[in-house]
Amino acid sequence: MLMTAKEYMESLHRLKLNLYLLGEKVENWVDNPIIRPSVNAVAMTYKLAHEPENEALATTDSMLTGKKVNKFNALFESTDDLVRKVRLQRLLGQRTACCFQRCVGMDGINAVYSTTYEIDQRYGTEYHQRFREWLKYVQENDLCITGAMTDVKGDRGLAPSEQADPDMFVHVVERRSDGITIRGAKAHQTGTANSHEMLIMPTLRMREADKDYAVGCAIPTDAEGVTLIYGRQSCDTRKLEEGDIDVGNYNFGGQEVLVILDDVFVPWDRVFMCGEIDFSIMLVERFAAYHRQSYGGCKPGIGDVLIGATSTMADYNGIRRAAHIRDKLGEMIHLAETIHACGLACSYEGWRTMAGNYQANTLLANVCKLNVTRFPYELCRLAEDIAGGLLVTIPSEKDFRHPVIGKYIDKYLKGVPEVPTEARYRMLTLIHAMSFGLVAPSYRTESMHGAGSPQAQKIMIERETDMEHKQKLARSIAGIDERENVLA
Amino acid sequence: MLMTAKEYMESLHRLKLNLYLLGEKVENWVDNPIIRPSVNAVAMTYKLAHEPENEALATTDSMLTGKKVNKFNALFESTDDLVRKVRLQRLLGQRTACCFQRCVGMDGINAVYSTTYEIDQRYGTEYHQRFREWLKYVQENDLCITGAMTDVKGDRGLAPSEQADPDMFVHVVERRSDGITIRGAKAHQTGTANSHEMLIMPTLRMREADKDYAVGCAIPTDAEGVTLIYGRQSCDTRKLEEGDIDVGNYNFGGQEVLVILDDVFVPWDRVFMCGEIDFSIMLVERFAAYHRQSYGGCKPGIGDVLIGATSTMADYNGIRRAAHIRDKLGEMIHLAETIHACGLACSYEGWRTMAGNYQANTLLANVCKLNVTRFPYELCRLAEDIAGGLLVTIPSEKDFRHPVIGKYIDKYLKGVPEVPTEARYRMLTLIHAMSFGLVAPSYRTESMHGAGSPQAQKIMIERETDMEHKQKLARSIAGIDERENVLA
Amino acid sequence: MLMTAKEYMESLHRLKLNLYLLGEKVENWVDNPIIRPSVNAVAMTYKLAHEPENEALATTDSMLTGKKVNKFNALFESTDDLVRKVRLQRLLGQRTACCFQRCVGMDGINAVYSTTYEIDQRYGTEYHQRFREWLKYVQENDLCITGAMTDVKGDRGLAPSEQADPDMFVHVVERRSDGITIRGAKAHQTGTANSHEMLIMPTLRMREADKDYAVGCAIPTDAEGVTLIYGRQSCDTRKLEEGDIDVGNYNFGGQEVLVILDDVFVPWDRVFMCGEIDFSIMLVERFAAYHRQSYGGCKPGIGDVLIGATSTMADYNGIRRAAHIRDKLGEMIHLAETIHACGLACSYEGWRTMAGNYQANTLLANVCKLNVTRFPYELCRLAEDIAGGLLVTIPSEKDFRHPVIGKYIDKYLKGVPEVPTEARYRMLTLIHAMSFGLVAPSYRTESMHGAGSPQAQKIMIERETDMEHKQKLARSIAGIDERENVLA
Amino acid sequence: MLMTAKEYMESLHRLKLNLYLLGEKVENWVDNPIIRPSVNAVAMTYKLAHEPENEALATTDSMLTGKKVNKFNALFESTDDLVRKVRLQRLLGQRTACCFQRCVGMDGINAVYSTTYEIDQRYGTEYHQRFREWLKYVQENDLCITGAMTDVKGDRGLAPSEQADPDMFVHVVERRSDGITIRGAKAHQTGTANSHEMLIMPTLRMREADKDYAVGCAIPTDAEGVTLIYGRQSCDTRKLEEGDIDVGNYNFGGQEVLVILDDVFVPWDRVFMCGEIDFSIMLVERFAAYHRQSYGGCKPGIGDVLIGATSTMADYNGIRRAAHIRDKLGEMIHLAETIHACGLACSYEGWRTMAGNYQANTLLANVCKLNVTRFPYELCRLAEDIAGGLLVTIPSEKDFRHPVIGKYIDKYLKGVPEVPTEARYRMLTLIHAMSFGLVAPSYRTESMHGAGSPQAQKIMIERETDMEHKQKLARSIAGIDERENVLA
Repeated sequence: MLMTAKEYMESLHRLKLNLYLLGEKVENWVDNPIIRPSVNAVAMTYKLAHEPENEALATTDSMLTGKKVNKFNALFESTDDLVRKVRLQRLLGQRTACCFQRCVGMDGINAVYSTTYEIDQRYGTEYHQRFREWLKYVQENDLCITGAMTDVKGDRGLAPSEQADPDMFVHVVERRSDGITIRGAKAHQTGTANSHEMLIMPTLRMREADKDYAVGCAIPTDAEGVTLIYGRQSCDTRKLEEGDIDVGNYNFGGQEVLVILDDVFVPWDRVFMCGEIDFSIMLVERFAAYHRQSYGGCKPGIGDVLIGATSTMADYNGIRRAAHIRDKLGEMIHLAETIHACGLACSYEGWRTMAGNYQANTLLANVCKLNVTRFPYELCRLAEDIAGGLLVTIPSEKDFRHPVIGKYIDKYLKGVPEVPTEARYRMLTLIHAMSFGLVAPSYRTESMHGAGSPQAQKIMIERETDMEHKQKLARSIAGIDERENVLA
Repeated sequence: MLMTAKEYMESLHRLKLNLYLLGEKVENWVDNPIIRPSVNAVAMTYKLAHEPENEALATTDSMLTGKKVNKFNALFESTDDLVRKVRLQRLLGQRTACCFQRCVGMDGINAVYSTTYEIDQRYGTEYHQRFREWLKYVQENDLCITGAMTDVKGDRGLAPSEQADPDMFVHVVERRSDGITIRGAKAHQTGTANSHEMLIMPTLRMREADKDYAVGCAIPTDAEGVTLIYGRQSCDTRKLEEGDIDVGNYNFGGQEVLVILDDVFVPWDRVFMCGEIDFSIMLVERFAAYHRQSYGGCKPGIGDVLIGATSTMADYNGIRRAAHIRDKLGEMIHLAETIHACGLACSYEGWRTMAGNYQANTLLANVCKLNVTRFPYELCRLAEDIAGGLLVTIPSEKDFRHPVIGKYIDKYLKGVPEVPTEARYRMLTLIHAMSFGLVAPSYRTESMHGAGSPQAQKIMIERETDMEHKQKLARSIAGIDERENVLA
Repeated sequence: MLMTAKEYMESLHRLKLNLYLLGEKVENWVDNPIIRPSVNAVAMTYKLAHEPENEALATTDSMLTGKKVNKFNALFESTDDLVRKVRLQRLLGQRTACCFQRCVGMDGINAVYSTTYEIDQRYGTEYHQRFREWLKYVQENDLCITGAMTDVKGDRGLAPSEQADPDMFVHVVERRSDGITIRGAKAHQTGTANSHEMLIMPTLRMREADKDYAVGCAIPTDAEGVTLIYGRQSCDTRKLEEGDIDVGNYNFGGQEVLVILDDVFVPWDRVFMCGEIDFSIMLVERFAAYHRQSYGGCKPGIGDVLIGATSTMADYNGIRRAAHIRDKLGEMIHLAETIHACGLACSYEGWRTMAGNYQANTLLANVCKLNVTRFPYELCRLAEDIAGGLLVTIPSEKDFRHPVIGKYIDKYLKGVPEVPTEARYRMLTLIHAMSFGLVAPSYRTESMHGAGSPQAQKIMIERETDMEHKQKLARSIAGIDERENVLA
Repeated sequence: MLMTAKEYMESLHRLKLNLYLLGEKVENWVDNPIIRPSVNAVAMTYKLAHEPENEALATTDSMLTGKKVNKFNALFESTDDLVRKVRLQRLLGQRTACCFQRCVGMDGINAVYSTTYEIDQRYGTEYHQRFREWLKYVQENDLCITGAMTDVKGDRGLAPSEQADPDMFVHVVERRSDGITIRGAKAHQTGTANSHEMLIMPTLRMREADKDYAVGCAIPTDAEGVTLIYGRQSCDTRKLEEGDIDVGNYNFGGQEVLVILDDVFVPWDRVFMCGEIDFSIMLVERFAAYHRQSYGGCKPGIGDVLIGATSTMADYNGIRRAAHIRDKLGEMIHLAETIHACGLACSYEGWRTMAGNYQANTLLANVCKLNVTRFPYELCRLAEDIAGGLLVTIPSEKDFRHPVIGKYIDKYLKGVPEVPTEARYRMLTLIHAMSFGLVAPSYRTESMHGAGSPQAQKIMIERETDMEHKQKLARSIAGIDERENVLA
C-alpha cells in the first residue's frame, strides 16, 4: 500500500507524540505552522510515488515481497538502484529546496539489513530474520522511518563507558525475557517528529567495556518514555507571522529533534543488535557510506534551486550577461555538478553485500561527502555575491504591504522595470532562507555534519586507499623496485 | 564636548525619526528591543572615548579646532592616524562582535573633506568651507554621522538618467535661492536610525546627462521628508522573546535601513556638491578606499570573537588538542590576521590629499577588501565545522528552562563534565548568531557588499596597477628589451 | 592483429618521419634517448593488450568487424565501454606516470565516426563510409593514431579567414579530382612522432567565410609535406646524461610536436569533412567531451604515482604518521578521486549517438575537466610540501657517484637509517620530474590546456545547463509561480 | 667601503672554494655558465648600492660605526628600516626574477646580534662583543654573508643527539683553547658559493643532551674542511647550450648548495654560541621571523615579473581584453599584493630587541609566510592558464634558428601580426623558467620551504595568538562571563 501525501498526514495525526517546541508541549503538531513545512517536505516523498512521470524513480518492487513499495523503504537491489536513489534525491531537493528527511531511514534500513545478516552468520543469532519481518511491516504500511544514530556524546575524548554520565550514549539498562530497556538520547535527529518509527543504531566503534552500548532496534516515535524536543531553527518564528514572503521557503523545511529515550522498552522482535561490539563499526560505516552517497543527490538538487534563484536575481538586477556574473554562475553549476558526479560515481561503483543488497562504494561516497562539506558554502557565498546586500537589508513583508510606506518600497526596490518588486522580494527571501534562514541548516550545516563531520571522511578516505599499492607504483617508476620492461 | 554613551542615548531620544519596523511606526525606538542592540553598538564608540586605556585610540585633537574630538568625527592627520583607525575598529569589533556602524560617517567625512577642496580648486566654489563649518558643528556636538552613498539603482545596466523611473538615484528636483530639494532613496544604510545626521554622497561615476544626480549634502536624520524603514534581520524577533540566550549576541547588533528621501529640502550651507559630475567618481573612490580599509580593522575584530568562541566550543567538547582542530583554529587565525595585515598595510602606506588629510593606499585597501569578501566565509565554515551540528539543532532557551524537559536538556547536552550545559548553550548560540543569525550580516554580507562588491575591487586593483611597468620588467628579463648589464 | 610492444616499435622503425629535435633532423628517432621514453609510454598501450589480467580492459571486439582490436582503436559501444576506457586510462597512468598519448586518436576516431554519420544524413555525402573503411584498416593493422585538432591560431581574437596569414588554421588550398591539398600547422600534437597516422580535425566553430578551414582527413605521419618539430621539454637533456636517477621517470615520458603541413595531398577516400562548416563545432565538441572525460582516467592514475611517491618520502623522512602529513596525503587522495569520480560519472551517464557509438555526458565531462585544471596543481603543491626542499636542491647523480664527495652525500642525505640514500634520491627525482621536470607537462600543463582551456569548459558548462528549468524551480518555491500543493 | 658589482666578482675570484658541480670540481666557478647567473643575482645587491635612485634603499649608516654600509650587512634600526628592507627586496625581485640570495645573511646577522646580547646577559659570556667585531669587519669589507641554519636532519622524528649518525646536525666535536672544531652538513644553502663567509646557526630547539649541537659561529666559505656541492636545478644544462632563449631567465638565477663541514676549525673570536641550549630556539625563531618577513618583499617582486610576462603573453595572443583574462590577471595582482601587504605589515609592526635592533612582528611574519606557501603556486597556475600550452611544447631555440625549419616556426608560432615570433618565444620561455625551469625553485619551492615549511608557520601562529583573550571576548559577549554594560 502506497500512501498518498494526504494519507501520510492523516497517519501522522494518529501518532501520540510527546513533542516539545519552544518551551511548550505541542498537541496538533502536524498543523503547527513551524512544523508543517517539514511535514510537507516528507510528504513530497509520498507524492512522488503517485506521479506517473516519477513513479519509476520513487517506487520499486520489494526484494522481500515483490510488492510495489516506496523507494525510501526499499533495499537497494543493484548499482542502478543506487543511481536511481541519488536521482530521486536530486529531484526531491529540487522540489523542496530543503532536507526531505526520509533518507536517514532508507540508509539505516539498508545498513541494518546487511549487518544483521553478517552478525547472524558469525553468532548464530536471528537478528536478520527479525529485521526482515519488521521491514515487511514497514513496507506494507508505507511507514516513514527515521534512522537514529548520533548520540549526544558528552566528552568527545572518551568512550561511551568512560563518560562521567553513563547515559551519554544510548545503552541497554535492562535485559528481560520479553525485551530490553534502553536509555539515552539521540541528537540532531532529522525528521523524527514526521516519522512513525525510529531505527536506533550505535554511533561509533565499541570496545569490550561498551557492550551495553552496542544496541540496534526499532521503536515507534510515540513509544512510552520517548520525548522529542524540537530544535530551534534560524528565523523559525517567521512562520508564525502573517504573509508568506519573509520565510523564503514557505512550503518546505527541514526538522531536527533531540530525542530523549528515558527507559524505553523494546520487545525482542524489534531488537537487531544487542552487545555485538565487533559489528558496531560495520553498521556505522555502512550507514555512513549510504548517507554520504545521499548528499550527492539531495545537495545538488537544493543547489539547483539556489542557482536558479541566483541567476533570476541577476536577471532582475539587469546584470545577467555581465562576464563576471556568468563566470560565477558557471562556477556554482560546476560545484553542484561535481558533487552530483561523485554521488553518481559512488552509486555506479557500488557492491553487493553478503545479504544481497547493494552498498555504495565506500571510498567514493566519502569523497563525495568531503566535497559536500565545502562546496555548498561556496555556492552560498557566490549567491550572496550576486544577489546583493538587499539579501539582508530588505524590509519585512509587513512594511511592503503597509498603506503608507509600502508604495515607497514598491517604487524603490524595483530592479529592471518589467519585473514587479514583489518578485524580487520573493527571490531575495528565498536566497536568504537558503543561506541564513530556515533552510540554511539543510544546505550548509547538514552538508558539514550530516553523515559525519569532514574529519571522519578524511579518516575513511585514508583507510580505503591502498597506499602500499601506490607506493609500489612509485617505487617501480623510480627504479627502487625493478623497473617495468615494456618489451617483455 | 565628548558625549558619554548615556548622553548619546539621551540625544537620540530627542530625535523625531520617522521610522518603521516590521510594518509599524516606532516611537521610542531607542528602547525598542529589536533596535536597542544596534544603539548599544554605536554607544560603544562613545564609551571608548572615556576609557583611559583607550582614549588615545578613540579620540584625537581636531585638525580644524585643536579641540579633543571623537575619532569617528575626525580627519585623518597622518598615516599613523590611519593605523590607529584600524586598531580602534578591531577593538570595537572585539567588544561588540558586530558592525558598530559609525565608520561610514567617519569615512564619508574624510572623503568629502578632500574632494570638496579639489572641487573648489577647479571651480571656485565654496563647498569645502561649508563642509568645514558643518564638520566643526558635528565635532563640537559629538554627533553620530552616517554616510549615505548607495542608491537603490533600479536596472544595474543603466545610468541614473537612463532609468525608467528617474528617482532610482538620489537627485536634485529643485534648485532654490535658499537651497535644493532632493528625492530618491538610499539602501542598506548602516546605522542611520542611530545617527543624528546623514552625509549624502553620489554612488557612481556620472556623465553629462546625470548632472542632477551629482549631489552631496548633509541632512538631519529626522528632516522633513525623510522616512526610515528598518531592514529585517535574520532571527530579529528572538529579541522580543524572553531569555537572553537564543539571540546569541544579546547586547549588540548591526542595523541597516532603507532611507526614503521624499523631496527633502537642504539649505545651501549644507550642500557640498551639486552638479560637478567630474568629481562624483573621485568622491566615490576616496570613500571606497577608506571603507575598504575599515574592514581591515572591524572584521578581524569580529573574527577574534568567532575564533575565541570556536576554540571554547572545542574545549567544551573535549577536542581542543586534536590535531585537526588545532589546524583549523590556526587557519582561522591566519585568515583573520591576513585581513588585518592588509588593513594595517594600506594605512601605513597612506598618502596626503591636497586638502591635508590622509587617504589609505588605494591598491592595498582594495586588496584588503577583496580578501574580506572571502575569508570571513571560510572562518564561518570552519567555526561550523568545529562547533558541531548542535549549532542549528539546539532546542530553545525556553525548552532549557522548562520544568519538565529542561532537565533532559541539561543532562544530555553537556559536553565535558566540568562545563555547565548553559555555557555550551551560550557559546553555540553566539556562533549561530555570527554565522546564521542576528549578526551574521555584519560578518558575512557586509564583508561581501559593504564598500562595494568584489567585482568593484577587482576593477580597482586592475586600475591601480602599473601593468606597463611590470611588462617592462618582464621584457628586460626576457631579453626582448635590452637586458640589464649587472656590471655596468 | 594485435601488435606486441616490440612489434609496435619495429613498425615505427619503418616510418620515414621528417622529424626535427633540438635543431637537428633525427633519423633513428625510436632509439633516440630523448624520444624513446615517449615511445615506451605508447608501447605500454600495446603491452596491456597482451596481459591476461588486463586484456578485458585493453581490448574489445570491433563494432565494425567483430574482431578483437585494441581499445584505443575501438568505437565505444556502451556506457560500460566508456567506463572501461577511463579505468584503462587510470591503469596506464599508474604504469607510466605520464601521458601515454594514444587517447587523442581514440577520442578523435569516435568523434569523427558519429559526426560523419550526421553530415552524410544531412548532405548525402559519403564521409561516414569512407571513415569506416579507414578505421577497419587501422584496426586490422593495430596502428597508432593521433588526433590532430589544435591549430596554431595566430591572433586569438580573429576567425580563421580573418587572420593576416591565411595559414594560421589548416585549410584546403586545392581541390582536385583525386583529392585535396591542405596547408597549415597543428600545435601541441601529442604523440605524433609515435603514431602511424594522424586524424586531422578542425579546431573551432566555422562561419561561411571559413569554408576551406572545415576540413577533416587522415594522413600518414610520414606523408610528403609533413614536418614534425619536437617540443622542448623541461630537463629534456638529462636523458642524454649518464645515470638513470636525475631524469626522475627514466622509462616513460610524454611527447608534444609541432606539425607542419606544407601542401600535403590527401586522396578523397581519406577525406572526412570538406567545407561542411555547420558540422565543425559538432566535431570539436564531441571530441572535446571525449577528451575531457579521458582526463578523468589518466590524471588520477598519474596522481596515484605522485601520492605513492609523496607518502614514501614521508616514510623516508620519518614523518609519515604526523597528523598534518596524513591530512595532506588524505587531501591528495581526495582530489585525485574527485577527478576520477567525475570521469566515471560522465562515462556512466553517456549517450548513444545516431551513428551508434557512445558519447560521454557533455556536462559532466566538462565538469571533470574543469576540476582537472585545478586539482593536479594542488596535488603538486602538497607533494612539494611533504617532499621537502631537497626536491630542488639535491646534487646530481654524478655527484652521488663521485669517488670523493659521493660518500658525503650518501652520509648526509640519508633520512631514516633503514632506507638507503639512493632510494631517497630516486623518490625525490621522481617527484621533481612530475612537478617540475620531464613529465610535469603531462600532469600540469596538459591538465590545464589539453582538451581545451578552463574557459572553454566554463562556457560549455553554462551551455549544457538548463538554467530556465532551475529558475522555474526557484520561482515555484519562492511563490512567484504557483507553489506546489503537496496534497494535490 | 661599498664594493661595486665588478669588485664583488673580483673578490669572489680570490676565494678558493672546494666546490663540486655535476660531478666535477669547479675551478673558475664565477665564470661557469651554470653558476654565473646566480653570481649576477647577488651582484645586483652590490649594484643597487651605487644607483643614485636606489641608494637610500640599498645602503644605510651602520649602527656600529656610523659609516655607510650595504643594507644587507646592516642591523635594522627601526620599523621603517624593516619596511625599507621589504621594499628593497621587492625591487631586487623585480630586477632579477629570482632569488638574489643575500637575505639569509642579513637576517642571520640581525638574529645573532640580538640573541648573543641576551645570552651574554644571562651567562656573562662575551659572544655579543665578538659578534660586533666580526660584523664590523664584514661591513667594512662589504662581504657577502650567507646564513647557514638548516641541518640535514636524518630522521625528522628524532632529536640531534638521538640520531643513528651523530653528524646529522652540525655539532662541536672538539673544544680547544684556541677554538672549536665542528662537523656536520647544512642543506639547501642559498648562495653559499657566492658568499665570502657563512654564519652558522642551530636549526631547532635543543635539549640537555643536544648541548654540542647548540653552536653558532662564522667561517669563511673556503675554510679548510668545507666542501660545497652544487644542487641540480631544473633545466640547468640549458645554460651550457648556445643561444639565450631557452633558459628563460638568461642573466639571473638562484643557487642552493649542500655544505659539508668535515671537522672545520673555528677560532673562539668567531664563535657566537656554544652549548647555550636554552637560546637555540630564540635564535631560530628570530631568524625565522626575519626571513618569513623577507618573502613579503622578494616574492611579490618576482611575482611582478610573472604578472608582467603573463599579461604580455595575453597581448601577444590578442586576448588581453577578454573578461576572463582580465579577471585572472586581477587575481594574480591581488595575490601578490596580499603577500606584500603582509610583508609591510609585519615590518611596520616590528619591535625593538634588548640589543637595540628591530625584529619583525612574529605573528604577522608567520602569516605572511603562510600565504607565501600558497599564493605563488596559484600565480604560476594562472600564468600557465593564460600563457597557453605552448609554454611546454615550444621547440628549442636551435629549431627556431634552423635554416630549414626555422621559417616554419617563425610563420606558425606568431601570435598577433605586429609582434615578432621571437618576442613570443622569449616571453614563453621566461614564464616556463619561472613555473617549471631554472628559477621555478626560487618562486615555488623556496616559497614553500624557505624559512620553514608551512606547518612551522601554523605552529607559530597558534603560539603567537592570545587565545585566552579571544575566549574571554567570546565569553563576555555570550554572557558566560558578565556582559559589558555599555552605559557604565
